[in-house]
Amino acid sequence: MKFFITILCFVTLLFSCNTKQESKAENITETKPQYTQEDYDFLAIGNPNKMSAASKRALRNNYHKNDQWFGTFNNHELKGDIGYEKGVIRRDPTMVIQVNGLYYTWYSKSVGKTYGFGTGDPEKKVFPWDKTEIWYATSKDGWDWKEQGVAITYGPKGAYDDRSVFTPEILAHNGKYYLVYQCVKAPYLNRTFNTVGMSIANSPNGPWKRLEAPILEASKDGEWLGEEDSRFAVKSQGSFDSQKVHDPTLLYYKNKFYLYYKGERMGERNTAGGREIRWGVAIADSITGPYVKSEYNPITHSGHELCVWKYKEGIAMVSSHDGPERQTIQYAPDGINFEIMAYVNWVPSAMGLVTTLDNDKHPTEALSWGLHHMSKNYPGKPWWAGDQYLARFSFSRNRNTKAEFADGYKD
Amino acid sequence: MKFFITILCFVTLLFSCNTKQESKAENITETKPQYTQEDYDFLAIGNPNKMSAASKRALRNNYHKNDQWFGTFNNHELKGDIGYEKGVIRRDPTMVIQVNGLYYTWYSKSVGKTYGFGTGDPEKKVFPWDKTEIWYATSKDGWDWKEQGVAITYGPKGAYDDRSVFTPEILAHNGKYYLVYQCVKAPYLNRTFNTVGMSIANSPNGPWKRLEAPILEASKDGEWLGEEDSRFAVKSQGSFDSQKVHDPTLLYYKNKFYLYYKGERMGERNTAGGREIRWGVAIADSITGPYVKSEYNPITHSGHELCVWKYKEGIAMVSSHDGPERQTIQYAPDGINFEIMAYVNWVPSAMGLVTTLDNDKHPTEALSWGLHHMSKNYPGKPWWAGDQYLARFSFSRNRNTKAEFADGYKD
Repeated sequence: MKFFITILCFVTLLFSCNTKQESKAENITETKPQYTQEDYDFLAIGNPNKMSAASKRALRNNYHKNDQWFGTFNNHELKGDIGYEKGVIRRDPTMVIQVNGLYYTWYSKSVGKTYGFGTGDPEKKVFPWDKTEIWYATSKDGWDWKEQGVAITYGPKGAYDDRSVFTPEILAHNGKYYLVYQCVKAPYLNRTFNTVGMSIANSPNGPWKRLEAPILEASKDGEWLGEEDSRFAVKSQGSFDSQKVHDPTLLYYKNKFYLYYKGERMGERNTAGGREIRWGVAIADSITGPYVKSEYNPITHSGHELCVWKYKEGIAMVSSHDGPERQTIQYAPDGINFEIMAYVNWVPSAMGLVTTLDNDKHPTEALSWGLHHMSKNYPGKPWWAGDQYLARFSFSRNRNTKAEFADGYKD
Repeated sequence: MKFFITILCFVTLLFSCNTKQESKAENITETKPQYTQEDYDFLAIGNPNKMSAASKRALRNNYHKNDQWFGTFNNHELKGDIGYEKGVIRRDPTMVIQVNGLYYTWYSKSVGKTYGFGTGDPEKKVFPWDKTEIWYATSKDGWDWKEQGVAITYGPKGAYDDRSVFTPEILAHNGKYYLVYQCVKAPYLNRTFNTVGMSIANSPNGPWKRLEAPILEASKDGEWLGEEDSRFAVKSQGSFDSQKVHDPTLLYYKNKFYLYYKGERMGERNTAGGREIRWGVAIADSITGPYVKSEYNPITHSGHELCVWKYKEGIAMVSSHDGPERQTIQYAPDGINFEIMAYVNWVPSAMGLVTTLDNDKHPTEALSWGLHHMSKNYPGKPWWAGDQYLARFSFSRNRNTKAEFADGYKD
């Protein structure tokens, strides 16, 4: 298309005042993307004048670049307290930080049966992450974890966090520890809006002091349709985060505090990539806020759980399931404008990265290992009646063609 | 970018001979894509003047359209003879055709241990699809299958198909039956090139008569580096199908015969989406050929196994694993120029579609059910030492939000 625009410009100029305009026309042609023979060769495009739509898209989307970002995630079982335990939910691990030689992680924990919505009893647990507290565990080697106890529980009755606190993320900054997490105020209905809270401690072992007010709220700028408790029935949807602000992740970046989060929208629709899910960022000069939502939100149109890390001057991320760009690794040189770097096949859920890795060594160094959660579903029950537990992931860079086509296998 | 080109054209014209050129400049501005408020609303883009890179990409790639192409594949076990059987490989089912009320499918079948390359014994099986014949099975209901026996075995020693015949596809046309399939001539080495063969019968039960020569060959236009039997060591790679022409699928389309196939390339590289895999098409006026490779090849830059079907005036396809566009559903109005319609989470391997479905009823009607293969790997052994077996898939259109968030679950 750009090529045709350029031609059109050129022809227009030729037919108007061609003798004067040749040099300017040359300037214009420089705006056409210049692909090299090497680009065509990489993509096996034999004749650049006879390109299929797929070949044009391959060039436009840089399918011939960034292979160093590709790799394969692997899942490993943990030892100790935080692996699978029947009837116990442990999910959404934070980043893993190291303090005095000990690894720490925080996570959502709850027990008791999940009933779903509409039971008529407002006290009944509606989701695995309902009536959840934030617990923590420590490990010497990142494999064998010891559960240490509760870090943060619900706020007092009537407060913004009186029903559930969950999906925590940790930031250690200037000798203090900051947990950010989702909060739900009772009652927990389909149409409930949620908030992001923050608690602060001088030690990773606490005690934690919660802020009196949330640091981020759903925009609530859509309009429900009717009185039935359906989150899909709306007159208007509002912003990408009109109903939910999920999975907050706090990074210290460019001398500011970047609070990345997932938005869910009133009247959520289906898309060509499944659920309508997007991320935003809210930025503050001070770590406790105020956090101002970026004018450039939404900054993704995919990705169920947040996973972001600093890489060189920018921010890299992994988009897990949901949306057309599910299962991609992306990079934003400015922390806002993400471009797809790699397309992977499986992404662990709710990844918590390890903050002591040397991120800048390689684009995916930060993914070397970390924690995530797995789901154990039970026959005949819906997914949300299953248990979740923590596990460890690793990332194999690129393909290992040697292993893939190993010679002379003997058993 | 288009917008900037347009502006540049406009400014250039203004500064050269502005009074004459305004109407032409207006024509040029019409080449800018016009997005509606509805487009912005769907994508939750609050301020079109402050769009993130992701929002621009969402508009450009139509993330707000084509949700009717989205869905979820499900796997089901079959009854009868062609499900899992230890030590037996059954894989790559053809499309399912119905003749006299009976469903038919053909598939690659082999027995015996797979050793991989480099054993020093050229008779040893190197892959699950080495030393494979084409067998067939029938079913009254598509669930309970009866294996009927071999349809096509190796050709005579020294022929193009003397080592293995596999990945069959069927076309019933004008009362005759045409099987197309991959052929390997001994010895089977890492650097072996392969071909596509064809056999013809008057009945789906045979007897099958093979053509004396392949109908398609690898382009062989790269150059190996050194003498070691490595398919990764090359001086030059050549075309997208320089080493392999895999997974042939024959469709009667626009009064011609479209032979879609997967190419593998000498010196295969890694990409940002994993393996370098592309599809091509070769077209013939007569069903037995000659098949002429399209000048527009490659027509995809992703997709491990072929899965194509006629939908309205064009050809739809599913791209399984491998490449940046793995796990997508695409559509080409002309059978050549494929655009991505939906992004799905899991794609069954080597799908065989059912030819009696009413494809035009819905974009994914052709995916309602069909056959595919599953892999059973054994602990401590590489994937290629495992068994493959046939299974059935179904496709759930879009999301079922009712089921997903079912009210009041009781167990």
